[in-house]
Amino acid sequence: MSLTLVRNINVATMTNPELGIILNAAVVLDDDKIAWVGSVNDLPATYQQIETRIDGEGGLLTPGLIDCHTHLVWAGSRANEFSQRLHGASYEDIAKQGGGIISTVKATRAASEDELYELARERACTLITQGVTQIEIKSGYGLDMQTELKQLRVARRLEQTLPVSIRTTFLAAHALPPEYKGRADDYIDFVCDQVLPAAHAENLVDAVDVFCERIGFSREQTERVFSKAKQLGLPVKLHAEQLSDQDGAALVADYQGLSADHLEYLSDSGIQRMKEAGTVAVLLPGAFYFLRETKLPPIESLRRAGVPIAIATDANPGSSPIHNLPLMLNMACTLFRLTPEEALAGVTSHAATALGSAQQGTIEVGKQADLALWKVRAPAELCYQFGVNPLQKLWQAGTEVTPEQLFI
Amino acid sequence: MSLTLVRNINVATMTNPELGIILNAAVVLDDDKIAWVGSVNDLPATYQQIETRIDGEGGLLTPGLIDCHTHLVWAGSRANEFSQRLHGASYEDIAKQGGGIISTVKATRAASEDELYELARERACTLITQGVTQIEIKSGYGLDMQTELKQLRVARRLEQTLPVSIRTTFLAAHALPPEYKGRADDYIDFVCDQVLPAAHAENLVDAVDVFCERIGFSREQTERVFSKAKQLGLPVKLHAEQLSDQDGAALVADYQGLSADHLEYLSDSGIQRMKEAGTVAVLLPGAFYFLRETKLPPIESLRRAGVPIAIATDANPGSSPIHNLPLMLNMACTLFRLTPEEALAGVTSHAATALGSAQQGTIEVGKQADLALWKVRAPAELCYQFGVNPLQKLWQAGTEVTPEQLFI
Ligand SMILES: [Zn+2]
Ligand SMILES: [Zn+2]
Repeated sequence: MSLTLVRNINVATMTNPELGIILNAAVVLDDDKIAWVGSVNDLPATYQQIETRIDGEGGLLTPGLIDCHTHLVWAGSRANEFSQRLHGASYEDIAKQGGGIISTVKATRAASEDELYELARERACTLITQGVTQIEIKSGYGLDMQTELKQLRVARRLEQTLPVSIRTTFLAAHALPPEYKGRADDYIDFVCDQVLPAAHAENLVDAVDVFCERIGFSREQTERVFSKAKQLGLPVKLHAEQLSDQDGAALVADYQGLSADHLEYLSDSGIQRMKEAGTVAVLLPGAFYFLRETKLPPIESLRRAGVPIAIATDANPGSSPIHNLPLMLNMACTLFRLTPEEALAGVTSHAATALGSAQQGTIEVGKQADLALWKVRAPAELCYQFGVNPLQKLWQAGTEVTPEQLFI
Repeated sequence: MSLTLVRNINVATMTNPELGIILNAAVVLDDDKIAWVGSVNDLPATYQQIETRIDGEGGLLTPGLIDCHTHLVWAGSRANEFSQRLHGASYEDIAKQGGGIISTVKATRAASEDELYELARERACTLITQGVTQIEIKSGYGLDMQTELKQLRVARRLEQTLPVSIRTTFLAAHALPPEYKGRADDYIDFVCDQVLPAAHAENLVDAVDVFCERIGFSREQTERVFSKAKQLGLPVKLHAEQLSDQDGAALVADYQGLSADHLEYLSDSGIQRMKEAGTVAVLLPGAFYFLRETKLPPIESLRRAGVPIAIATDANPGSSPIHNLPLMLNMACTLFRLTPEEALAGVTSHAATALGSAQQGTIEVGKQADLALWKVRAPAELCYQFGVNPLQKLWQAGTEVTPEQLFI
């Protein structure tokens, strides 16, 4: 039995909306699990003699952060497109030149699995240095059998090689591949009949997602994918109401979905359905910022309805080329006016719920010891300041993360 | 003679608006200076035998980045205030509870010089890890003799202990201290007659700045400070037209000022005067973002008039608690619609002009070897993506910056 005692800390257990703060606390790690948490004054005698003792120097201990919506595995670069737009090119000009998501699909198809792995590894390591211990990763830049599976294999490999938990999401219904131009229904057939079953058979799929939008897939097409997911016993989630109200949130709720993500155009009825189904609202302030959107998600209505709100990077080359979860905390507060408490729940407890991760997201006895120790006095510091990284120590599944693990 | 050859690189010399790109380039460092730059094919025979050779692995070499507007030296935290506002408190509520700039002034006055140094050192190191080799630092959280000088001494000490050039700016006319309530003119007398001369006598002042605004100091008070600066032979700059048009840019131009900063409400006539005087427009997208401003600086008019535009963090606890210059590159493009070329000039050549730093900001023979090597193919990458730090190597005054210099 390997026990570690962390003391001289304040703890944000994230077990209630006020963050479940315990001042002058101690936490006991037993291998990969949390064995005890509470005020240091209540530490049981059996734990007082633990030899491995860590002095937290008055820092704040939170659950490891969770980035519950990313598209981390891709190749190529869209910097040129970014530049062209700033030089006045229209989206049409860029699409004509082969830009947009299709350029990422081409590059991702062309990249070897090892190349993709190296690119994704660097991005994942960047998130880990920010205090992240769990990352959701979607496919969706393959749009063919081989590449969708390649992306998901890379995601699985990251979990094997880095100190991080990975949740994979199958998102072949992200965009229509050029081969299927004008035949979206045929593509959905292909996805449902061939790609998803193959990915599932290889145990590559933890959840299934669709981009439901006028420029994506229809509600009816989405439902076909969800129906197949249900048949395979896989949970669903949805890119919903980002650019228009497709009533997608209600659909994902019908399937007891994990989360509906983006949600700028979410309706009151959609909120109600999400509440009833326990579906998490995942907000993505990075995409809101990068696309210079002006329509805010209905925060106050979500709050009143009691729908849990999560926050994620949406890290992707097109609409959020931002691999930084702490920046999302700041943007969630600054742009969306979440309170620091809400923003922090959004990258811990509620993010875990959005991933169906019962072992993560809070500091409670029996949960996985994913813990971040921060050199801050108040939790709000984690949302307010940006730039200086206050991460002091990070444990993933009870093991302290070292720079060597990330940079070799 | 210690020579270093850097090869297998592309160079952005920043000597013209197209970035002065040299593909397949080489650079020769001679101690702290740049001895040669050009296409590797033109490398003179004398330099072909240099023993210290660095393989840039196809990366992009730019000048070290310059953050030309910061308030880096302060104590305390305004996270609580940030949280209170998000919980619905008004600015008045917060001011009544002793919040706002006065809380930073109190904490900065109370901090020892060593404490302030440690806080500022961590912030400066954070900027250096991002590729920054020169930082401007303002006083202005003392508002009394002792603390203004203390802040400036800390700024000077950073230059002695870290691999970075520091430019100090005297900003005692930042806000009215409580002791002078209702006596702004008396405070300006005190600043001009006592604080500025004392700071100058101790060689702590590279330039003089004023916060000219309805909620700051008037144009007439600003002019008194400028007049004193001129008498002492010190260049001036100004926090101008951030919240309203005070015609401050024209005033700073009258004094051949280095820069006018913020400029959301800058008028056409102000632009014209800046152009004539060679005054740089320093734009601060972090404060624009954090304060959720909606009035953009007149970018297109500045562009048409040919006023050089610089970009900086404005790092400060009240309106831009953001110590990240690469994020400012992204925000300058995303929020202000600068092109990547303009944004990069804004943190190199034009930032150097804003500081009167003739030795920095471009890669040219004879200039100081402040150089950043980036693992990117296209310069636009530095503006487009955010999160993964692409800095590969950094030289300050010809010496490679090592992690040990920053973290010990
Ligand atoms: Zn997404
Ligand atoms: Zn400022």
